[in-house]
Amino acid sequence: MKIINGGVCAANGFLANGIHSGIRKNKSKKDLALIYSEKKATCASVYTTNKVKGAPLTVTKNNISDGYAQAVICNSGNANTCNANGIEIATQMCELLGNELNIAPTDVVVASTGVIGQPLDITPIANGIPALVKGLGKENSQDAAEGIMTTDTRLKEIAISFTVGGKECKIGGIAKGSGMIHPNMATMLVFITTDCSISAKMLGKALSTDIQSTFNMVSVDGDTSTNDMVTILANGMAGNEEITQDGEDFQAFMKALNTLTIYLCRKIAGDGEGATKLLECTVDGAKDEATAKIIAKSVICSSLVKSAMFGSDANWGRVLCAIGYSGADVDVNKVFVSFVSNKGEISVCKNGAGVDFSEEKAKEILLEDEITIKITLGDGNGKATAWGCDLTYDYVKINGDYRT
Amino acid sequence: MKIINGGVCAANGFLANGIHSGIRKNKSKKDLALIYSEKKATCASVYTTNKVKGAPLTVTKNNISDGYAQAVICNSGNANTCNANGIEIATQMCELLGNELNIAPTDVVVASTGVIGQPLDITPIANGIPALVKGLGKENSQDAAEGIMTTDTRLKEIAISFTVGGKECKIGGIAKGSGMIHPNMATMLVFITTDCSISAKMLGKALSTDIQSTFNMVSVDGDTSTNDMVTILANGMAGNEEITQDGEDFQAFMKALNTLTIYLCRKIAGDGEGATKLLECTVDGAKDEATAKIIAKSVICSSLVKSAMFGSDANWGRVLCAIGYSGADVDVNKVFVSFVSNKGEISVCKNGAGVDFSEEKAKEILLEDEITIKITLGDGNGKATAWGCDLTYDYVKINGDYRT
Repeated sequence: MKIINGGVCAANGFLANGIHSGIRKNKSKKDLALIYSEKKATCASVYTTNKVKGAPLTVTKNNISDGYAQAVICNSGNANTCNANGIEIATQMCELLGNELNIAPTDVVVASTGVIGQPLDITPIANGIPALVKGLGKENSQDAAEGIMTTDTRLKEIAISFTVGGKECKIGGIAKGSGMIHPNMATMLVFITTDCSISAKMLGKALSTDIQSTFNMVSVDGDTSTNDMVTILANGMAGNEEITQDGEDFQAFMKALNTLTIYLCRKIAGDGEGATKLLECTVDGAKDEATAKIIAKSVICSSLVKSAMFGSDANWGRVLCAIGYSGADVDVNKVFVSFVSNKGEISVCKNGAGVDFSEEKAKEILLEDEITIKITLGDGNGKATAWGCDLTYDYVKINGDYRT
Repeated sequence: MKIINGGVCAANGFLANGIHSGIRKNKSKKDLALIYSEKKATCASVYTTNKVKGAPLTVTKNNISDGYAQAVICNSGNANTCNANGIEIATQMCELLGNELNIAPTDVVVASTGVIGQPLDITPIANGIPALVKGLGKENSQDAAEGIMTTDTRLKEIAISFTVGGKECKIGGIAKGSGMIHPNMATMLVFITTDCSISAKMLGKALSTDIQSTFNMVSVDGDTSTNDMVTILANGMAGNEEITQDGEDFQAFMKALNTLTIYLCRKIAGDGEGATKLLECTVDGAKDEATAKIIAKSVICSSLVKSAMFGSDANWGRVLCAIGYSGADVDVNKVFVSFVSNKGEISVCKNGAGVDFSEEKAKEILLEDEITIKITLGDGNGKATAWGCDLTYDYVKINGDYRT
């Protein structure tokens, strides 16, 4: 297994593009993205658990109910959510694209991201689709990745090559994160492509299993988005024997998928709105995995922990506090905490009480831009990792006036 | 029923004081508070549900298990939490005070607030207690209120006179809020005194009933403190017939208590760390009260709603989003939202979709420092109110470097 270039176009048979269509006023920002598979692909998707759901999710869910899709269209700048005509607009996007690509509109995955509750005008999309399709290419994964960005400051893209049944397969993905990130069951916008041959059923199983310990363990701000969605397309063009059941091939696929999703999780968390640091919280020694997850999520979501990390302040009492209110079954007298970065590790709490430590060394460790909050419990073998970011002035600035 | 002066000293037989003892370095900041009743009082208390609990809470719970207390001592500057010798120090505080006041140490309620995980030195407290007791007076409620403040910018104090069985009774309270405020079952630090005669059992019932719709509906930052506690002392000196059961007298007491607690809730929320605005979220028309509470809490806790309010931005889509992920059973197509302040009311969402509204008028309404987010549902008669505050640069600033 190795990291390769090419993003969502790395896998055989996938093309992509991204353009500025005019949904956004800023002409230098791409706002419409397309991913296309030369062959119809098996498709699986997970969606936000928010009861207020973007109209595109309803249309996509319906379109891929047969387990297949061939293209993904996604606009940024407008979430097409809480609009009276949302379903109509999302359906039109599929129809317009289907006509241009000469595929069935029901083989289109549609997604939108941006401001909620403002009608989405179909005009720039309708006008942009011919150029979007015309520009499809093997080198354009980054254009698509740019097209789905909102307040993201960095493009999020990766591809991996791996082997299934002796055949080289590739898997690639792009993601948009930044704000309103607190996935539960589903997640932010992530589109994944692979040329591995895998049945729709096993693809769905792989995705829904994987996200439990990857995207569902990311939180930027505790707000679960209305438009979260992860979609994966597998077009089988690698030529491996189709994966139709559990076994060695499925495990190889899962491993590649997991490597890709963890990479994107870290990118999404580290580029959270206003973030200056990626925070990783690892929990070991919990009663069970579920307990470890509750604790890791609670710590990574704490506004006080996040603010302390922004200030590079080793305020471990707040970590204990977040463990305490997490609701997890934990013996607080057996909690060990240390902070870890490229500059080393410092132990700050043993058996639930503070230990003497060098504030100078702690500061040096916490000034780094990737910090691990390492929690060791004495209750069992459960472990989990969660990802988040610090809470900064810029988070408030970005979100104090997002619409204007 | 009317608002009166005097805070925790308004009720007959209660004296208070607050001094700088030296726990804090800043000599102009009081750090030790005392409330004393001339007669032993019935006492009830509710505590944080955080599993990491301040040592003082354990000692207090034990001390008042007989339903009685006569004094409250509280220091700020150090939470006496996650320290190996926490119980020992809290017990010493009760013993030292008991000796000085000539009451049983087990009639003392002890509380601490401040940084977690740094040993609390008994020396300044031991040295300060004689002066603390000597200075007890009827005019000193504000000194006690100052003594318990941490990052609070405003003193929180109120008193009310009311009538029970033809006798004038008084009830007064002080509170400290600011950060790590997200009560559940219990709450921040609040001390309430009354001269109303009421049994320990009915006092406990009154308090635990009241907090469900008052302190438990406040959130500043989603972090449930380790040291939250509300304690009420009733010394019976108003001379009314003791309240020992439900009925007219109990209801009169509940009404006065509720008026006092709602006042303090609003003060705590409006003075949340870094806050520039008090936010109130009212929900009406929910399936039931529990559902209304879930929704109101979800909206008031949303970092995105809080940031939008800081920016006076009518971003109602985020309100819908927070309703959607709250987990409440709600028909999102029947949601109405409006923003209300002293400058009027503006409707921004009807039947789950946006309506045309004047951005200028919305801005004028949202620039006020007390904002109500009014949510009307079409699912039943459940209603609830939650209180919070905006998320600002100053929250991050205060918490980026709290310990130093």
